[in-house]
Amino acid sequence: MIHWHQYEPVLLTDLYEITMAASYFREGKGGEATFSLYIRDCPSVRGYFVAAGLESFLNVLENFRFSPEAIDYLRSLGRFSEDFLEFLRRLRFSGTVRALPEGTIFFPYEPIIEITAPIIEGQLLESLLMNIFHIEILIASKASRCVEVAKGRGLVDFSLRRTHGVDAAVKVARSSYLVGFLGTSNLMAGKLYDIPVFGTMAHSFVMSFEHEMDAFMAYAKTFPETTVLLLDTYDTIRAAHKAVEVARWLKERGIKLKGVRLDSGDLVELSHQVKDILRSHGFDDVAIMASGSLDEYRLHELLASGAYIDVVGIGTKMGVSADAPYLDLAYKLVEYEGKPVLKLSPGKRSLVSPKQVFRYYDKNGLMDYDVLTTSWDSSERGEPLLIEVVRGGRIVRDLGGLKVARRYFQEQYSRLPEDLKELEPTRSYNVVIGRPLLELEERTAQAKRSQS
Amino acid sequence: MIHWHQYEPVLLTDLYEITMAASYFREGKGGEATFSLYIRDCPSVRGYFVAAGLESFLNVLENFRFSPEAIDYLRSLGRFSEDFLEFLRRLRFSGTVRALPEGTIFFPYEPIIEITAPIIEGQLLESLLMNIFHIEILIASKASRCVEVAKGRGLVDFSLRRTHGVDAAVKVARSSYLVGFLGTSNLMAGKLYDIPVFGTMAHSFVMSFEHEMDAFMAYAKTFPETTVLLLDTYDTIRAAHKAVEVARWLKERGIKLKGVRLDSGDLVELSHQVKDILRSHGFDDVAIMASGSLDEYRLHELLASGAYIDVVGIGTKMGVSADAPYLDLAYKLVEYEGKPVLKLSPGKRSLVSPKQVFRYYDKNGLMDYDVLTTSWDSSERGEPLLIEVVRGGRIVRDLGGLKVARRYFQEQYSRLPEDLKELEPTRSYNVVIGRPLLELEERTAQAKRSQS
Repeated sequence: MIHWHQYEPVLLTDLYEITMAASYFREGKGGEATFSLYIRDCPSVRGYFVAAGLESFLNVLENFRFSPEAIDYLRSLGRFSEDFLEFLRRLRFSGTVRALPEGTIFFPYEPIIEITAPIIEGQLLESLLMNIFHIEILIASKASRCVEVAKGRGLVDFSLRRTHGVDAAVKVARSSYLVGFLGTSNLMAGKLYDIPVFGTMAHSFVMSFEHEMDAFMAYAKTFPETTVLLLDTYDTIRAAHKAVEVARWLKERGIKLKGVRLDSGDLVELSHQVKDILRSHGFDDVAIMASGSLDEYRLHELLASGAYIDVVGIGTKMGVSADAPYLDLAYKLVEYEGKPVLKLSPGKRSLVSPKQVFRYYDKNGLMDYDVLTTSWDSSERGEPLLIEVVRGGRIVRDLGGLKVARRYFQEQYSRLPEDLKELEPTRSYNVVIGRPLLELEERTAQAKRSQS
Repeated sequence: MIHWHQYEPVLLTDLYEITMAASYFREGKGGEATFSLYIRDCPSVRGYFVAAGLESFLNVLENFRFSPEAIDYLRSLGRFSEDFLEFLRRLRFSGTVRALPEGTIFFPYEPIIEITAPIIEGQLLESLLMNIFHIEILIASKASRCVEVAKGRGLVDFSLRRTHGVDAAVKVARSSYLVGFLGTSNLMAGKLYDIPVFGTMAHSFVMSFEHEMDAFMAYAKTFPETTVLLLDTYDTIRAAHKAVEVARWLKERGIKLKGVRLDSGDLVELSHQVKDILRSHGFDDVAIMASGSLDEYRLHELLASGAYIDVVGIGTKMGVSADAPYLDLAYKLVEYEGKPVLKLSPGKRSLVSPKQVFRYYDKNGLMDYDVLTTSWDSSERGEPLLIEVVRGGRIVRDLGGLKVARRYFQEQYSRLPEDLKELEPTRSYNVVIGRPLLELEERTAQAKRSQS
């Protein structure tokens, strides 16, 4: 079996989730707890985040059970009692999940998902839940910046070869499509999520032929309708003239050359030279595709310098979120047996209670401010963002999958103020803490300080 | 089915690998090709790299076949002929693989793995092969720096919650163990690779009890032999006094408190205060564990400032290789049908031919320099580093798995010059290009320039 086919949700966790569960079990501690997932700090190069990961998480939640092999492995560690292992074997998730729909734009301290369940269940989900949401939010938020900079040009995810592992590869394709990429080169993601796939040839293809022109013609004969010729294996300008010959050959057969791709060199200069060559021979409609170490910063520079680009392949730097490769994501216990709980930690704020976010818009329909408050605060009239998706362990609301989320994101994004879309935003969006939440937090902190 | 259980090796690829294969197939182009994987540029904060990924890759290679579902998906794209799809359905890897054993220390431009096979086979492997080696080398090379800085203190991988996806989580645990970590918190990695697992309690555990002391005692009763108390939920110093009480309670039962953990605050100051409290009550042998945003830079600072730490939990920053989250890894065609091939790309060097690396040691047994040359150069007397692991599509050499690789790395690392182990190395290791390779490269480049 392939190594990743052996991955089990219940074991994709930190040992301490299981030791804590064992201790809760021994103490007979089965009270209901609420855990909340949120981002504490915003990297200076992010003006907003995009919610993603819920579909993957629900997929895992439905399969969250300890197999006989998982139980055997835990037994082999020599730490757990047989009655606890039997308890695990029977365990199924029985709780409630409230979450931001995928594609929601959100900000630090706003809950992304809240789990309310017997404490052992909420605790056991922690590590895997964080892993899933972290990568998908990280990439959706990064890729959205690329879409902004591209100003309507098509973007294609080319990151598979250098994402961190194969799970990230698929998640990156999905998350970038969620925020408006045209598609991906990644076939597995294409198959799993019905994302359009793109791609034609690599340098090695050109190099394997005696002459570059042989490679171009071999490709055009195999895929006349979808040929995109890679021009920079030897000399981009000479290759552009060969592309004209291919375009002519195709035209004689009533077919249009789809595009050419530039993957190295001075893309500003080369894109114009290539465009001129194509245009001067009457092939103005051949798309110019650019790739090679591109991200939102580089693409912004290229376009500001007047590069002529129709379609962009975005790879490694987006696929690993190179300028901010991790987020300060936290999953915290906020309520136990109906009582708010709080960690007192110097320098880090932690907010008690199950929560809701209400969004307010200005008269132009743009996002104005959010109110972050307790889930039971009935005084707010804004748009509530968290919705219930699981109750009693069962999915109660079908969110409609990737394409619905993609449209939802586009609608949201059109209402995000322009200054928050900047590559280096100069202000933070206004998130107001509701009075009931503030008061509850203060009371809880005082009680804790006087007692511990 | 869980999404990652549906991942298939043959579809974890870029579309262009398949379109190129289709064009080769149509042209009847089945000649033997050699592809070489290497790192072009070394980030300034890496003095060396550690080979890793071979076991995962061979595991995938053994399972590299197009399932009926994969063929159906390709057919649905509407681009591929039925005879090509039938060819893919029957395709098995039939070639030769030469590689650096896992744990080998290597440098830019040295081949990590070379595939010699009919060109379609070598090409189809590209994307997934790169993905696998990239993450494992990235993390092994990063984690090795943490081990260096720790100067013999135990390190544990705590990165699961923020690695990029679940595949990365398991690979990070494996790669960090390969270079000398004590173990991981990640149970899936523990089970798959027989890596020791560590972990005790989170803040949420402490917070779920009315009193901190109740949480400590509940844990100590469940796991008396392996208790590590987390001290910083409310007030670290007060918690240290409670830890003394727990240590006393355990001592009355003939058991030693294993450790305490500090996860926030001024770790230099707090570690000494906590150590003093434990020592003054006769519990000098309780280990002090530190965690929380640690990597080799922060750990170096802490230890230089005199922090008292026995064991270290290393998380996110190692798990995403935050200071260098990707490597300039390339997989290039270097020979086709016995002839060297070369890409002429401004600013990027590319080396022709199947190759071998010969390592030379100085009189103290330390690594002195490497010679990178053609695979058929018989003039070198150094230690050859690449070995044949697959022939005719079958694994012909069992490399012995993770523990053998771990010992091999330790042996290698003891022979690496000290200045290359620095956090910011001031020199590069000397890799000499052998004369036969230089001459071949020059001849090939000339021929290509005159022709294309």
